[in-house]
Amino acid sequence: MQWTKVLGLGLGAAALLGLGIILGHFAIPKKANSPAPQDLDLEILETVMGQLDANRIRENLRELSREPHLASSPRDEDLVQLLLQRWKDPESGLDSAGASTYEVLLSFPSQEQPNVVDIVGPTGGIIHSCHRTEENVTGEQGGPDVVQPYAAYAPSGTPQGLLVYANRGAEEDFKELQTQGIKLEGTIALTRYGGVGRGAKAVNAAKHGVAGVLVYTDPADINDGLSSPDETFPNSWYLPPSGVERGSYYEYFGDPLTPYLPAVPSSFRVDLANVSGFPPIPTQPIVCALGCPVNVSVYNRLELRNSSNVLGIIRGAVEPDRYVLYGNHRDSWVHGAVDPSSGTAVLLELSRVLGTLLKKGTWRPRRSIVFASWGAEEFGLIGSTEFTEEFFNKLQERTVAYINVDISVFANATLRVQGTPPVQTVVFSATKEIRSPGPGDLSIYDNWIRYFNRSSPVYGLVPSLGSLGAGSDYAPFIHFLGISSMDIAYTYDRSKTSARIYPTYHTAFDTFDYVDKFLDPGFSSHQAVARTAGSVILRLSDSFFLPLKVSDYSETLRSFLQAAQQDLGALLEQHSISLGPLVNAVEKFEAEAAALGQRISTLQKGSPDPLQVRMLNDQLMLLERTFLNPRAFPEERYYSHVLWAPRTGSVVTFPGLSNACSRARDTASGSEAWAEVQRQLSIVVTALEGAAATLRPVADL
Amino acid sequence: MQWTKVLGLGLGAAALLGLGIILGHFAIPKKANSPAPQDLDLEILETVMGQLDANRIRENLRELSREPHLASSPRDEDLVQLLLQRWKDPESGLDSAGASTYEVLLSFPSQEQPNVVDIVGPTGGIIHSCHRTEENVTGEQGGPDVVQPYAAYAPSGTPQGLLVYANRGAEEDFKELQTQGIKLEGTIALTRYGGVGRGAKAVNAAKHGVAGVLVYTDPADINDGLSSPDETFPNSWYLPPSGVERGSYYEYFGDPLTPYLPAVPSSFRVDLANVSGFPPIPTQPIVCALGCPVNVSVYNRLELRNSSNVLGIIRGAVEPDRYVLYGNHRDSWVHGAVDPSSGTAVLLELSRVLGTLLKKGTWRPRRSIVFASWGAEEFGLIGSTEFTEEFFNKLQERTVAYINVDISVFANATLRVQGTPPVQTVVFSATKEIRSPGPGDLSIYDNWIRYFNRSSPVYGLVPSLGSLGAGSDYAPFIHFLGISSMDIAYTYDRSKTSARIYPTYHTAFDTFDYVDKFLDPGFSSHQAVARTAGSVILRLSDSFFLPLKVSDYSETLRSFLQAAQQDLGALLEQHSISLGPLVNAVEKFEAEAAALGQRISTLQKGSPDPLQVRMLNDQLMLLERTFLNPRAFPEERYYSHVLWAPRTGSVVTFPGLSNACSRARDTASGSEAWAEVQRQLSIVVTALEGAAATLRPVADL
Repeated sequence: MQWTKVLGLGLGAAALLGLGIILGHFAIPKKANSPAPQDLDLEILETVMGQLDANRIRENLRELSREPHLASSPRDEDLVQLLLQRWKDPESGLDSAGASTYEVLLSFPSQEQPNVVDIVGPTGGIIHSCHRTEENVTGEQGGPDVVQPYAAYAPSGTPQGLLVYANRGAEEDFKELQTQGIKLEGTIALTRYGGVGRGAKAVNAAKHGVAGVLVYTDPADINDGLSSPDETFPNSWYLPPSGVERGSYYEYFGDPLTPYLPAVPSSFRVDLANVSGFPPIPTQPIVCALGCPVNVSVYNRLELRNSSNVLGIIRGAVEPDRYVLYGNHRDSWVHGAVDPSSGTAVLLELSRVLGTLLKKGTWRPRRSIVFASWGAEEFGLIGSTEFTEEFFNKLQERTVAYINVDISVFANATLRVQGTPPVQTVVFSATKEIRSPGPGDLSIYDNWIRYFNRSSPVYGLVPSLGSLGAGSDYAPFIHFLGISSMDIAYTYDRSKTSARIYPTYHTAFDTFDYVDKFLDPGFSSHQAVARTAGSVILRLSDSFFLPLKVSDYSETLRSFLQAAQQDLGALLEQHSISLGPLVNAVEKFEAEAAALGQRISTLQKGSPDPLQVRMLNDQLMLLERTFLNPRAFPEERYYSHVLWAPRTGSVVTFPGLSNACSRARDTASGSEAWAEVQRQLSIVVTALEGAAATLRPVADL
Repeated sequence: MQWTKVLGLGLGAAALLGLGIILGHFAIPKKANSPAPQDLDLEILETVMGQLDANRIRENLRELSREPHLASSPRDEDLVQLLLQRWKDPESGLDSAGASTYEVLLSFPSQEQPNVVDIVGPTGGIIHSCHRTEENVTGEQGGPDVVQPYAAYAPSGTPQGLLVYANRGAEEDFKELQTQGIKLEGTIALTRYGGVGRGAKAVNAAKHGVAGVLVYTDPADINDGLSSPDETFPNSWYLPPSGVERGSYYEYFGDPLTPYLPAVPSSFRVDLANVSGFPPIPTQPIVCALGCPVNVSVYNRLELRNSSNVLGIIRGAVEPDRYVLYGNHRDSWVHGAVDPSSGTAVLLELSRVLGTLLKKGTWRPRRSIVFASWGAEEFGLIGSTEFTEEFFNKLQERTVAYINVDISVFANATLRVQGTPPVQTVVFSATKEIRSPGPGDLSIYDNWIRYFNRSSPVYGLVPSLGSLGAGSDYAPFIHFLGISSMDIAYTYDRSKTSARIYPTYHTAFDTFDYVDKFLDPGFSSHQAVARTAGSVILRLSDSFFLPLKVSDYSETLRSFLQAAQQDLGALLEQHSISLGPLVNAVEKFEAEAAALGQRISTLQKGSPDPLQVRMLNDQLMLLERTFLNPRAFPEERYYSHVLWAPRTGSVVTFPGLSNACSRARDTASGSEAWAEVQRQLSIVVTALEGAAATLRPVADL
């Protein structure tokens, strides 16, 4: 009988075990069947913030600015190699990196025949010559690689004529001279930097028969009036009296010979005779006490040169086909310690810190992060523009945002951000969590809001973001590709100076010591920019829900609408043009954006499917694209964004409408100019309605 | 002691149970943690194929063609209601449906003053008048809603002049007349349909000083030469002797007053005086035995009319933001039984079958299916074009493919498909599984390949797809939005007839009885088209991996390249233009497309993550977009696709290149025309390189 008992016990035990197994497998739900979707990890963020080192940035800058690195120069090429080396480093590099070379048209003065400006005496002899170079006050302004101050792309020529002072060389300035009865034909116009773009001065002058243009820097504009050697660099932040600003005088951006095509060797190149956008008359920036008459001799040369971009990528772990793009240009006019190497130094430190975490296996971002070092920016955003022409579709379809850090520190008082509304929220989030340099315990955000603020109907008092023009490499991304973009830097306390820009801008005095002594001793502002940019990058690349807030566009649209109603409403009514459809379109956008925001909040409370969130993120990423219209501004080059195209009209509203009204204002009803006003209005209405349509629940038509 | 035994047994039992539970929960992996991703269900496909009913299609057609339904007429509006009713049916309707109305410029003859063409005698008196209407042979050709034959958009006027016969009204025809010494100034040109587009005949004529154009249908072109009443409808398939083809004579497509803008009430409208694309001289289609001189009196009127599209949607279950779009136009010239109601009848049956499965809860597609009924196609693809202008971004970002079925049955011999290469594979898959109408046991595919075939270097003998011009509503989708598209219909056995098109095309003889007796008795070809379209829709909407095969573009590119090398290579070399970069670009595309195909195959063998497949599907869906360039053809309206824009050059290669070479051929080296050749070549190279870049692994730059 023992064996039946044993058998019985055995069977019972097996049955219990089996029952347990069955219960355990089927009846008790597994906690999380799929792992939680990859999301922003605050510990990683903390680590990155802590790792970004001010002293390493300083040492980066020292190396980068050690020698002049003009676009396509041998030293510029050396820096390409430096970047590749750092980005391929086995311990702190990226997944992969490579250089990509374009053949672009640049412009240089002649080494054999320097540009000269001479004052001519009554007998025709030279009584005074302007300095051809800046004074060698620190030992770094001499040397064959310090390019003479010149106006890039200005044509060669040797005009001689009476000197006329034309203020900033704006159209009004020349009109004013005409009104005063001054004969402009054949004169040399002396203008000062500022007010209008460099190239525009020459264009305006030539229209009035002027034969040559000189441009100088007025100490009042740049130096708070100071000019003696004691009061200026190397003794202070200010520009020495011999300082001259270089720059590109080309009207557009991108390689001049290959509009809309990448400047690869095989691309069609426009005939030099047919290139538009070059200054029409010899132009030369100077510093000089002038009398007249004046000989101007410009011997600039156009040259086809190789210019490289360097690109490196950290591949996204989950959504590798979504790119967070971070760019800085590499080329300078001379030493370029501020412009652009203060930004390159930050770029190197950011990529080092992120690359180190990557190589250690600690972290891989959800989305891909692409680092870009652009070439030939100083000549007209050339490297970045050619890149967008070459990879137009790929970038437009996949880029979440473009972050530009050109100059990282103009001055060390406060953060300054330019960008489109959807990026506002991620910048606010980032800066609230980072300590501001300087005394006290403020966040970057709390310091920032004291310098740049606005009263938002939605948020109350917040820091204000500037808008994006064409001042740096974000231009092709926002205007040509319609990618939400931003530019980040530290900048001045405007109550302390009225300098138009940091005084040694584009001069041979923009050196490491200048930065180290007068701009950001300790490099804590450089570090603040690195942390801000790093935090923004991580939030964009790692957050499950993309931190782009499209409903923040509603404020902009509402503000543009109100300006149009207030300042153009009566005029439009006189011409039987109603703003009603625009009102409707703005309201529709506001409503759809708000509703989408609600849907996002609801989703965020649950455990949404990654595919669902992906679909939503696509709506957010692609919203900026809906404002592009390549047929809106046929007379412009690249500009296609109906909210941010250049505005020449005075009313701060939709640029197409503002500009068209400005042109039509004094014309008769029914003129072509008034038809263009209607067309521009319809273009905006269609864009806003189309934008709203993309924000609707995706399966609603 | 019993209780210790009981206790011991109890504890042991609990331990065993607990152990079992632990083992079952943790040690045994759950089989499929997430449910299998939604994929094409062959049973659903079978069901749909079986449900599509030829007789229901027939009854649909009877109702649709019962009365004339000219765009914007009351009957056209009735049909809008009919569609809405069907699509909102609780048992067989869609998720939602609505109509969307535009205000568009159409053109009609005057009811009070019909267009007339008279032959004038020597004294100026009318000796013979052409018939103003077609003969009422079935009782359906009379009635006030049968619009008189006319040339839509031709201007009013009453030219009188000597008649000149100008064949097809092509440029060569007028040149030939000039060569013969015939004085064209002030004449009336008699032309026949075919050869060149309708509007082009008037444009060409006007260039030579012709005062008015008449267009007739040559029985040789339409009727295999037959013309007596006994040999023609209602006794046969052929056009009765009084038949006249109506049509739009507008050069472009879309509403003429709102290019690139949707024709909503508030949109900017071009001044009538500034509209381009209307025929410049009075034009009238006729049937007449003519002598000369001839009075032509055209009293057409331009009118702003409301035209509706009807849209209905079945929301996707998994990827609702991916649209499979299926369209057919609703408006006709008269009864339109073939054009377009043969297609509308199919549309209604397809949406009924799919709607029924939906409402029963049997099925919901993975992606969204959108059904569209377009208005005012006959006047120039207006409804579909306005739709693409209104929702440009939304459609471009989300539409997987556009399927057009305008006329579903031209004749009942074989399938005919036009489309871009990526859709070839899904059409092949669909048609291999559907039985062909007619005797025998052939599949549609096996019947099709006997009529239209080509020798593919990759596949061997396969059915050939035609390319997409601007003949129907696919035009804005492929040319303006860059969405992979197709047009499906049944068509003629060309060994049996050389009719340019089914003989009663655009006449009052295109009636239900015509279809029922002579085109497709039994409606089995209608059913075959419905099944083909239905299967394609389901495969596109339900397959986990999108059945768009981008590597099938390689053959097209290779073929275009070879034609360029053979027929243009020498000419280009003479002008120092190398095709090398084009060769490289084609090879790069081929390589990347092939590699992508490999990656897909590998993925398909495993259980890939839906997000991974989504990223891949995005690459496939968006490939067609990479061939769009809105700046490639500035003189064209909407055309932006660098592979399929209109080709006027004789060499069958990239149209921009073919056309530019044609224009440059007889000009000197260095001319603007040769610069344009280079520009067009670079445009293609850039597009192909850009396309290849989007096919690379997504995290490779």
